[in-house]
Amino acid sequence: MKKKGILAVISGFSGAGKGTLIKELLQRHGEQYALSVSATTRSPRAGEEHGREYFFVSKEAFEQMIGEDALIEHACYVGNYYGTPKSYVEEQMEAGRDVILEIEIQGARKVKEKFPDTLLLFVTPPSAAELESRLRGRGTETDEVIRSRLKRAAEEAEFMEDYDYILVNDDLDTCVREMHELIQTQHFRTCSSLERIARIKEELRCL
Amino acid sequence: MKKKGILAVISGFSGAGKGTLIKELLQRHGEQYALSVSATTRSPRAGEEHGREYFFVSKEAFEQMIGEDALIEHACYVGNYYGTPKSYVEEQMEAGRDVILEIEIQGARKVKEKFPDTLLLFVTPPSAAELESRLRGRGTETDEVIRSRLKRAAEEAEFMEDYDYILVNDDLDTCVREMHELIQTQHFRTCSSLERIARIKEELRCL
Repeated sequence: MKKKGILAVISGFSGAGKGTLIKELLQRHGEQYALSVSATTRSPRAGEEHGREYFFVSKEAFEQMIGEDALIEHACYVGNYYGTPKSYVEEQMEAGRDVILEIEIQGARKVKEKFPDTLLLFVTPPSAAELESRLRGRGTETDEVIRSRLKRAAEEAEFMEDYDYILVNDDLDTCVREMHELIQTQHFRTCSSLERIARIKEELRCL
Repeated sequence: MKKKGILAVISGFSGAGKGTLIKELLQRHGEQYALSVSATTRSPRAGEEHGREYFFVSKEAFEQMIGEDALIEHACYVGNYYGTPKSYVEEQMEAGRDVILEIEIQGARKVKEKFPDTLLLFVTPPSAAELESRLRGRGTETDEVIRSRLKRAAEEAEFMEDYDYILVNDDLDTCVREMHELIQTQHFRTCSSLERIARIKEELRCL
């Protein structure tokens, strides 16, 4: 029986360690996962590569994708478009790979509307104090930036209940293992087993 | 933060290997699980022990439990009552242990009504042919009994979609591992994380 991939949205506070978790998940189990790359109209920053961090496209090209319903979700931030191309996600899922989509709550909701079987994961540090300490520990951001990230986190926390699962990133190694087990066990969901159920019903009728 | 146990209902075709799976799960991870023992008014069979296979009680005692709402679910089969005492399940969950309840679909539904967070698992062999071969392989049952079990399986299969997860018991070792991972990852469900979510929201507001 052909296994179809799962679409897993991963959100979480800035500083929760989503990026590191996803990188580690892909390094350990790369053959099972595909990372969705977003399209954007913003300019590439130093070191960013087309097709790796983002697909960098023109405003016209982006609006054409919207018109052709080629995006699962899209949004506008600070004058630039960001969105998730549908074809790559669908191709990877059909090939049996679980697709990881790192997006914010608004996007997560739109994805869940279009694909109700999407798994919504929210990553949080064990406490707010730990979040603040991680943000300060980076040593790269001003106090003002840190305050604004914490304010944003407080706003985002109001939507945590909209997610299916909450992963606490206390220890990276443990959290990567939990994330992997969580996504993999979702293959046993009834909605992922409908083909098998139909087959066994038919076989039992014919015995 | 105190971890509350999960209530996991395990159903499946006769011959699917539920009993062996549960026994193995408890042997490997006994400290994390508690097996719910049903109460019944039927007489103990040879080798059965009060409190191990069942709590053997009188009809009067059983009806008193019904009257006191002391059962999560109960049903009558072939003139005898069977039911799940509520107190043991609640005590074990409060103590942080995940409670395994091996019951049929009608009971599973009643449990889910009373405890909406209950996890409903259905165990199936990989195919109907494999189910038949396992039932015949036991060598202890007449052809008539086997036919009636297969007929029952065909009836039960109609309710597979009512379960949350479908576990295929192809290889015992793999299936026990999957069952354990599945139950354990359910601790990350949003409904199991409400206390943590409330705490982090509060902390972020106070930063």
